[in-house]
Amino acid sequence: MTAEFDRDIAVTPTGEQEYAADLRPGWVVGGGLNGGYLLATLAHAVRRSSMHPDPLTVSVYYLAASTPGPATVATRRLREGGTLSTFAAEIVQDGTPRLTALATFGDLDGLPDDVETSATEPDLPPREDCWGLALAPKEHRAAAPPLQSRFTMLFDPASAGWAVGRPGGRPVIQAWFRLNDDREPDPLSLLQAVDALPPVTFELGRMGWAPTLELTAHVRARPAPGWLKIRHETRNLAGGMFEEDCEVWDSAGRLVAQSRQLARQPRPTR
Amino acid sequence: MTAEFDRDIAVTPTGEQEYAADLRPGWVVGGGLNGGYLLATLAHAVRRSSMHPDPLTVSVYYLAASTPGPATVATRRLREGGTLSTFAAEIVQDGTPRLTALATFGDLDGLPDDVETSATEPDLPPREDCWGLALAPKEHRAAAPPLQSRFTMLFDPASAGWAVGRPGGRPVIQAWFRLNDDREPDPLSLLQAVDALPPVTFELGRMGWAPTLELTAHVRARPAPGWLKIRHETRNLAGGMFEEDCEVWDSAGRLVAQSRQLARQPRPTR
Repeated sequence: MTAEFDRDIAVTPTGEQEYAADLRPGWVVGGGLNGGYLLATLAHAVRRSSMHPDPLTVSVYYLAASTPGPATVATRRLREGGTLSTFAAEIVQDGTPRLTALATFGDLDGLPDDVETSATEPDLPPREDCWGLALAPKEHRAAAPPLQSRFTMLFDPASAGWAVGRPGGRPVIQAWFRLNDDREPDPLSLLQAVDALPPVTFELGRMGWAPTLELTAHVRARPAPGWLKIRHETRNLAGGMFEEDCEVWDSAGRLVAQSRQLARQPRPTR
Repeated sequence: MTAEFDRDIAVTPTGEQEYAADLRPGWVVGGGLNGGYLLATLAHAVRRSSMHPDPLTVSVYYLAASTPGPATVATRRLREGGTLSTFAAEIVQDGTPRLTALATFGDLDGLPDDVETSATEPDLPPREDCWGLALAPKEHRAAAPPLQSRFTMLFDPASAGWAVGRPGGRPVIQAWFRLNDDREPDPLSLLQAVDALPPVTFELGRMGWAPTLELTAHVRARPAPGWLKIRHETRNLAGGMFEEDCEVWDSAGRLVAQSRQLARQPRPTR
């Protein structure tokens, strides 16, 4: 059986380095489709064009909201070498580019196996002690955006005060994460995972949508099967914007993806 | 008098959104020209094409080393809105793209004036207690790459063990920074500043060049005049690569630029 995620990021070649995608309504959140879903779809097309299988670094600039329905993913090879390929790519709907990206692909299995990570794994409580959508009141579940039904996300209660109307005030949100159909994580799904959690500004009492200007993700290792741990944080809210750093750790305790985005702050709601 | 930095990043229009640059040998380091200098030159061309004056976020992918001499900077407007413009841009030499970038420009003076920064300013000793190239033995000064003569960089001795053959082993390097001719910092020069320090891997005893795959810089505020404080650090050396985060703080104690790059690790030399 093909997992939901794989069905939803499917692309079909339509020309020289060009692909058709059908962006699925299940990924709607806030003012459009989830940026991580779009990034994974775009990278899926680049993978089809590239002799190297894995996104090592992808930078995406969001130009306009994408909507469910047909889209074209155009890729353009800028350099292809022995170990790395660099591409430009964009997602176009109705003749308008919705997002544009640069990406360097390589082969994660071909990298040296040194690991000297000083970053620390998110200290999440066991999953049975975390908060998921299933625990929310019925009316809350009914009002949740479609995106929330694409995966199971189990929040650390210590950084989920926002979910019960009592934002903790610390600019951190962390959660367990698993795609529907127990679809195991891979380098493409990590690109969705880095933009899956709510904006870290929720925990500061700003419950609005935080439009991303730019997001860059580094995939640092092929993830082990199983649940992921994801942490969002920010250290510089200023000038109406904030940077949001994301770390994704796999079930083997390895830091497998890092991302940073620049987003507009939601307006305070309390 | 025009400051050295401004002479060196000068660009001349040669066509529709296209510019000529003369890349200066003074910025050579390691295997080519300093990536920050190239980034500032590229952004200078984008500024000429844009109705918005300031780089807010720039992502650059390095395709091949650039060399001193003539270059073309080609810019392409992807979107122009009321407050933001997004461009693609590349630097081409001898018909070959050397680096390619995406950039969103805006107007830093038009942003709200909120500041809630939880990041902490580098705790640098006074400049007279820091180490600069002027203190180095004569033969060391003579062997320093040309780049080191474009600015005054005064290292915190606590993270400069590498300079005296005793790398401290902590993945942090921090320094005071000022361009030649007392050229005051501005959003363009911040793009050079985020890639001015030696790779943080020096302090881990790996003294080689660390080629950048990708660098994204966010300019968060117009810097106050005076000395900058710059800090590099990494939290994830793995798979032959490392991410390097840079913060630039201005003389008013404000975090004015943040960057992250993905680079290849130099081979250990000790």
